[in-house]
Amino acid sequence: MVTGRAAIPTPALVVELDALERNLAAAQHLADEHGVGLRPHAKTHKCAEIAHRQLALGARGICVAKLGEAEALAAAGIDRLLVTSPVHPGWTTRLADLAATGIDLSVVVDSAASVAALPPAPGLGVLVDVDVGLHRTGVTTPEAAAELAQSIGPDRFRGVQGYGGHWQHIAGLGKRRAAVSAGMERLSTVVRALREAGHPVDWVTGGGTGSFAADAELGVLTEVQPGSYVFMDSQYRDALDEDADGQYEQSLFVQARVVSINAASHVTVDAGLKAFATDGPLPRAADPRYAGCRYFWYGDEHGGLARPAEGPPPALGERIEFIPPHCDPTVDRYDRLVLVRGDTVVEVVPIEAARRSQ
Amino acid sequence: MVTGRAAIPTPALVVELDALERNLAAAQHLADEHGVGLRPHAKTHKCAEIAHRQLALGARGICVAKLGEAEALAAAGIDRLLVTSPVHPGWTTRLADLAATGIDLSVVVDSAASVAALPPAPGLGVLVDVDVGLHRTGVTTPEAAAELAQSIGPDRFRGVQGYGGHWQHIAGLGKRRAAVSAGMERLSTVVRALREAGHPVDWVTGGGTGSFAADAELGVLTEVQPGSYVFMDSQYRDALDEDADGQYEQSLFVQARVVSINAASHVTVDAGLKAFATDGPLPRAADPRYAGCRYFWYGDEHGGLARPAEGPPPALGERIEFIPPHCDPTVDRYDRLVLVRGDTVVEVVPIEAARRSQ
Repeated sequence: MVTGRAAIPTPALVVELDALERNLAAAQHLADEHGVGLRPHAKTHKCAEIAHRQLALGARGICVAKLGEAEALAAAGIDRLLVTSPVHPGWTTRLADLAATGIDLSVVVDSAASVAALPPAPGLGVLVDVDVGLHRTGVTTPEAAAELAQSIGPDRFRGVQGYGGHWQHIAGLGKRRAAVSAGMERLSTVVRALREAGHPVDWVTGGGTGSFAADAELGVLTEVQPGSYVFMDSQYRDALDEDADGQYEQSLFVQARVVSINAASHVTVDAGLKAFATDGPLPRAADPRYAGCRYFWYGDEHGGLARPAEGPPPALGERIEFIPPHCDPTVDRYDRLVLVRGDTVVEVVPIEAARRSQ
Repeated sequence: MVTGRAAIPTPALVVELDALERNLAAAQHLADEHGVGLRPHAKTHKCAEIAHRQLALGARGICVAKLGEAEALAAAGIDRLLVTSPVHPGWTTRLADLAATGIDLSVVVDSAASVAALPPAPGLGVLVDVDVGLHRTGVTTPEAAAELAQSIGPDRFRGVQGYGGHWQHIAGLGKRRAAVSAGMERLSTVVRALREAGHPVDWVTGGGTGSFAADAELGVLTEVQPGSYVFMDSQYRDALDEDADGQYEQSLFVQARVVSINAASHVTVDAGLKAFATDGPLPRAADPRYAGCRYFWYGDEHGGLARPAEGPPPALGERIEFIPPHCDPTVDRYDRLVLVRGDTVVEVVPIEAARRSQ
């Protein structure tokens, strides 16, 4: 068994528990302070151990992006789940099966065809997904929202969801808050229209890590869905660096190792295109000794790390940790999280919902 | 159980068996025709079912990039393996354990520290990895190669490996062959120096799908290591389109589904940043009806597909297949391959070595 951090087979996904715990507590505190519910999004961590910790701290429930993630986390004991991507006909049978287990399960719909794909499961909660400007999913008018609420029926209709994924990484607190505010006005308009049409709207959900503080203050949402705050990544770090939303610590690292040392300008590490999400900035060495050393992709299995301008170069076999470019799809590429405190491996936990994007 | 292709939960990785089988046969035929050995690289498929098929057709053995992949495929019955990344100190114990199982196992080394990390396993074959211009791994001079061969010792020294990953995607047959030829000249120089120093070199291995035909004709390599030819992808398709190396068919697809249809300009599908490798070109719809429709990333869980200029748009729930940008890291993101013939699901097989990059 692995007992020390240096002995972990690499590449590996390592979580510093002290930082994770501070992030979990800070988010719950922010939500509590503003009287807004917290329903953390598990599309980031996909891990029952972390979801259980979030619920224990006071989270109202857990969000998942897909039905497959809900199935995986429900099997691991997470029993308050909201699926944030709209229901489609491919899900009907599996959704009926999951609802039949009796867990507290809610879903969103965004078209008549989506409502038609709902199984006749009595306990299932249904929200209308509203497009607040991303144009990815959601109804686009208050009238469409009211029509769907009507067809869902009063027994199952619970409220609305509006998620502005495109706001989350806007750099600069003022610009980001202005975008959130404009988008939330679209959601407020829909909520008003629904109420005027006689549909009670008790549940208004949405938001992410980048809009968390703004959402808490604006008061349109009754609950927020941040995900990335648990781990953070270079993308969020670059956007949120100097403002109130950037209070979360980097807790997630890809641990790699130097595996070839023959080149004059760089060493080769064992983490490449298969070890990181590649849609964000480049991986960055976390160790201050190598923080100025450029990483570059070196194929599927390897990365290059420029030798430091001063001080000794890393030795063959030396462990090097990287801040991942984008946490969600990086986590999705691994099977387990190695939870550490300092140099001690505390526990290795499965990422139950990784690759359960069906 | 899933019996029809349309019922597969999406996103899913689908392999068209007819195309796969033609690719496997064509590669073995090309190798046989030139009297060169074929040792296909499993870093592409990571799947014992396909490795068994390659061996049954005449492959000399199977390459893997990392020790973890060797462990996974050995556990699934693949017993002739070459690990193509150099040995480092993190591998010593596990390498001893795998060698002790008695399989036909070979590894490469590229420095004195790498040789020092070899376990004292008597049956283990050891090759010297030679840098043929990529500067990622490998010794850089004939003298260094001879020193390593000496320290490996005659009982375990088997030959050399030289892999030019940077040649594989050079567009244009002439340019690609010129690069391969220059790189292979570096390898020939090392082979001559080793022989002059009294080290027999019976095994000269390297190459990939893009250099396969050139390598077979040049005759420097005694065996070739192509991987991507089994599946192909947009990257290779773009580079190899019109020449002899491009004879392989697209056999790998990411099957997705339309999950939201509210936007005027596009529909939303359930395959995004988590469903594809993102380091290559964009995913392309395979269906001719949508082949001209631009795909765009729409976050971790979703993609956008522009509505077709003519003809009806895809309906909610409709299945859409995509040619993946880059096959190796795309495959690594899934747990299983769905093998199909036409609309029939023939078998669902595990990808045993996915994410075994340690």
